[in-house]
Amino acid sequence: MTRARSTRPRLARYLPALAWGRDYTRETLVNDAVAALIVTIMLIPQSLAYAMLAGLPPEVGLYASMLPLVAYALFGSSRTLAVGPVAVVSLMTASAIGHLAAPGSLTYLQAAVLLALLSGGILLVMGALRLGFLANFLSHPVISGFITASGIVIALSQLKHVLGVQAAGSTLPELLPGLFAQLAAVNVPTLLVGGGMLAFLFWARAGLPRLLQRLGVPALPAKVLARSGPVFGVLVTSFLAWWLDLGAMGVALVGEVPSGLPGLALPQVAGLPWRELLLSALLISLIGFVESVSVGHTLAARRRQKIDPNQELFGLGAANVASSFSGGYPVTGGFARSVVNFDAGAETPAAGVMTAVGIGLVTLYFTPYLAYLPTATLAATIIVAVLSLVDLSLLGRAWRFGRSDFSAVSITILVTLLLGVEAGVACGIVVSLGLHLYRSSRPHMAIVGEVPGTGHYRNIDRHQVATRGDLLSLRIDESLYFANASFVEDRVMDWVDRRPEVRHVILMCTAVNEIDMSALDVLESINRQLRDRGITLHLSEIKGPVMDSLRTTDFLEQLSGRVFLSHHDAVCRLGRELDEARQAHVLNWEI
Amino acid sequence: MTRARSTRPRLARYLPALAWGRDYTRETLVNDAVAALIVTIMLIPQSLAYAMLAGLPPEVGLYASMLPLVAYALFGSSRTLAVGPVAVVSLMTASAIGHLAAPGSLTYLQAAVLLALLSGGILLVMGALRLGFLANFLSHPVISGFITASGIVIALSQLKHVLGVQAAGSTLPELLPGLFAQLAAVNVPTLLVGGGMLAFLFWARAGLPRLLQRLGVPALPAKVLARSGPVFGVLVTSFLAWWLDLGAMGVALVGEVPSGLPGLALPQVAGLPWRELLLSALLISLIGFVESVSVGHTLAARRRQKIDPNQELFGLGAANVASSFSGGYPVTGGFARSVVNFDAGAETPAAGVMTAVGIGLVTLYFTPYLAYLPTATLAATIIVAVLSLVDLSLLGRAWRFGRSDFSAVSITILVTLLLGVEAGVACGIVVSLGLHLYRSSRPHMAIVGEVPGTGHYRNIDRHQVATRGDLLSLRIDESLYFANASFVEDRVMDWVDRRPEVRHVILMCTAVNEIDMSALDVLESINRQLRDRGITLHLSEIKGPVMDSLRTTDFLEQLSGRVFLSHHDAVCRLGRELDEARQAHVLNWEI
Repeated sequence: MTRARSTRPRLARYLPALAWGRDYTRETLVNDAVAALIVTIMLIPQSLAYAMLAGLPPEVGLYASMLPLVAYALFGSSRTLAVGPVAVVSLMTASAIGHLAAPGSLTYLQAAVLLALLSGGILLVMGALRLGFLANFLSHPVISGFITASGIVIALSQLKHVLGVQAAGSTLPELLPGLFAQLAAVNVPTLLVGGGMLAFLFWARAGLPRLLQRLGVPALPAKVLARSGPVFGVLVTSFLAWWLDLGAMGVALVGEVPSGLPGLALPQVAGLPWRELLLSALLISLIGFVESVSVGHTLAARRRQKIDPNQELFGLGAANVASSFSGGYPVTGGFARSVVNFDAGAETPAAGVMTAVGIGLVTLYFTPYLAYLPTATLAATIIVAVLSLVDLSLLGRAWRFGRSDFSAVSITILVTLLLGVEAGVACGIVVSLGLHLYRSSRPHMAIVGEVPGTGHYRNIDRHQVATRGDLLSLRIDESLYFANASFVEDRVMDWVDRRPEVRHVILMCTAVNEIDMSALDVLESINRQLRDRGITLHLSEIKGPVMDSLRTTDFLEQLSGRVFLSHHDAVCRLGRELDEARQAHVLNWEI
Repeated sequence: MTRARSTRPRLARYLPALAWGRDYTRETLVNDAVAALIVTIMLIPQSLAYAMLAGLPPEVGLYASMLPLVAYALFGSSRTLAVGPVAVVSLMTASAIGHLAAPGSLTYLQAAVLLALLSGGILLVMGALRLGFLANFLSHPVISGFITASGIVIALSQLKHVLGVQAAGSTLPELLPGLFAQLAAVNVPTLLVGGGMLAFLFWARAGLPRLLQRLGVPALPAKVLARSGPVFGVLVTSFLAWWLDLGAMGVALVGEVPSGLPGLALPQVAGLPWRELLLSALLISLIGFVESVSVGHTLAARRRQKIDPNQELFGLGAANVASSFSGGYPVTGGFARSVVNFDAGAETPAAGVMTAVGIGLVTLYFTPYLAYLPTATLAATIIVAVLSLVDLSLLGRAWRFGRSDFSAVSITILVTLLLGVEAGVACGIVVSLGLHLYRSSRPHMAIVGEVPGTGHYRNIDRHQVATRGDLLSLRIDESLYFANASFVEDRVMDWVDRRPEVRHVILMCTAVNEIDMSALDVLESINRQLRDRGITLHLSEIKGPVMDSLRTTDFLEQLSGRVFLSHHDAVCRLGRELDEARQAHVLNWEI
């Protein structure tokens, strides 16, 4: 990559495929092909299942697993990320377009395609504006809480397919009463298929790897076998459905899936309410981007590679635009499939291209075999996949760690469960930013004294330090800006007013990295108020950039005291001056 | 106040009138009465003018200057704040209800009353929730920029009255073309009255005080005389209008003002779109509160008194509710009148009650004399008053001080001028918070070294310091939280990767006051990545609360290195260990 960068740095930066393409060897090809085969097998049931979760026909899931992979391979910066339809984004898609049209209608399908186009457009614009850093404003607990709550909602929403009943909704208050009311209508053959599949999949996750290990199967094949549970289940239940004619017994089947590759076409979006979808598309883009980047980051770090968040915006944006041009719906990097891709030995995004070819072959030649696939099987696949995302221990960890994180995560979970995914993620962002602003608006401040004989100054409440009554040393542990300036003023004046013997106040500015005009106003006000009380204000250890800002104003001329480079120097000199003055006073008195 | 607090602390806290009422003397009474007389005289033209600015009948301005003053006197915490209709809030009122109804209609009037009620309700709720600190999130430059831009808009909107033409709008793109198109329709007698009044008022501000000083008039009477310019102008132009029958020559006059006190009544708000007014009411409350608190704060500091922001919310909330119950519109503390009140010697809010009585007497007995008052006179009063608020030098100061403040203030001014007051203030808040978050998301970090022989560690880019190649000392100058955690990780890994000889990394956490779960994840990731590279991670000078948070997790067990109390200690010990290891290596080699 370094060599490629030096010869054609610009193009390779925006088209990472040029970088890895140059060094592509036969060995890399073999490794990529093996990984692609495994991911293809894993991706078939997932694509069908997530399309169902999004309320879309099964072939849309397959379409979203072809061209987007090629687009990401060209523009993405991760070597091993596997993109395609994922659970949370599928739920968000259903939630965004669910109130625009009925699932199954042409409008619903067109809205999903439009959502992919909008989402791709937003990601590309964010990439062009280099807004990758925006992802940082989603705190980790908020993301985890959101994904946990989404997992619960998804699992519940799929339960109807396992029970063979009708129920709708994407929040707990909609889902639970619906499911409960339908308990009498449960279709037993469906429940047997779905329940059996669930039991098998849970065992394949937990028991099968142990069994294979005991049988002496090597690690990689064991891993692949354990991950192929869904494929095996699909084959078995499809066969049973055909053999026993389960469809006639009320078991819902996928039915006819049109074969053939999707046509490349401009998305049919005329007349669709694209403005109403814009906010949903933004939230889908953000969540998809954050999820994808965190997966990519984790995998890249394992091989000492790097991903570039801004380039990822281009990669994911291109993938979503490609999805919309080939009849798909919003896609992003998935966690499970990327890990499989990585573990199976994929070295370059070429593995993604080969996966796309594999899915294409399936779409061309194997769709007739999908007709007998029970939807209960797919629902069980989804439930097992998303329950592994649910992590309620997060709440306990957040509670022990700190109240802010706990508030953010619990509000995110509650709102997502009760009001839906969009409200949940929006609330999470607003609450975590709000709490951060609130905390930074009341910064930590301390009266400090010298750790005897060291010249080091520490908080008097935490350390054994020496102080003197006529000198007040205050440390402010935050940059001064508009939201905390008045708070600092109140604290300083309050401390001073409770110590009538104070003659000098020294503000120790070690942790003040920046200062704005509001804070300058407040410093001026503190200086004026102290002067009215006959007290001198000094500053110590001001950082360079802050000093530069202060120099553009007349504050330093107005300052009643001095600016000291070191706090210890300030305390020594002012202390000496106070002692001399007192002595002079005594002398005068004696004369 | 201290005594009152100790005997009936609770009640006096929520009803400050109890505190100052106990110590009320005859001398205080006289002082308050003199101040009240002067403020009353000043307030009459202002009340009429600001009602006109808000698009309301003149008597509404008088109504808003009675009961609200009494309510504030009971609940407000400032001793000398004078509340009533003010320019910016009047403009915001006009802008909020202007698209709901035509000025002059009953609905318009009812909407103004409703706005006062909503605004009062919001302030009371904020007071009950002790949300006074929210005012801190409006940065000083944003407020100044907003007031400057509002001043320009107000002055332009009043120009039509001075020119005697018709024009509407509350933004530059609406006002300027309207005024320009009407240039041919200018009414010359109106222009003579308005222009004359403008010239006189400007002279009264600038030339008159100098003249009075030269004539040897004492300071206070000189100040009062200079401030009475508007009253004098009102008397002269009213007399001229009556004498010369200016009304017949096309000069617009105030006309008949109903005399008598306003009836106390529940506001007639049924059927009004109160939801649509809620956001406007919130912005009016915020701006009014911020303006009022900053005036109150300034005046209180001069007499070493204090104001309590949360109590101010009650005071202003009560004033606005009182306004709505007596047919008024939103009010707040005004700058000019409060300064006059203070300078004229007011000692307690009783001065406000007496001002209310004064305005009441005027409303009862003097309204017939207002019929001949030209609106051009009132418009000139407003123009001169608001132009003193316009301070474009702010832009220059902000530019020199820092780009963030400049961006915030210039965006606020532009949006207020071009899109209106509500968009302006909302933009100002969002931009300044956004810029702050952006800055704190990329904190200052430095590689530090020892100032030789001192044990002090400073930035290697700014100071002459000693470092060693196998030990990397990094200082992070910000609390670690979700928005900056990834940035810190990238910086640390980047610095490490460019220094292959590094064996130990020590993070100096002097400025890390808090840490959240996202930052913990990042610390774990840094620790893991460094361990993969064979580098040990240490922490030094962690603060107590941060250590408490870390102890709730297993991070300290996972940490590859140690936690040192002092950074100097860390560098000395690790340096010694590295030297010993190297020596041992050499010795082994020799054997």
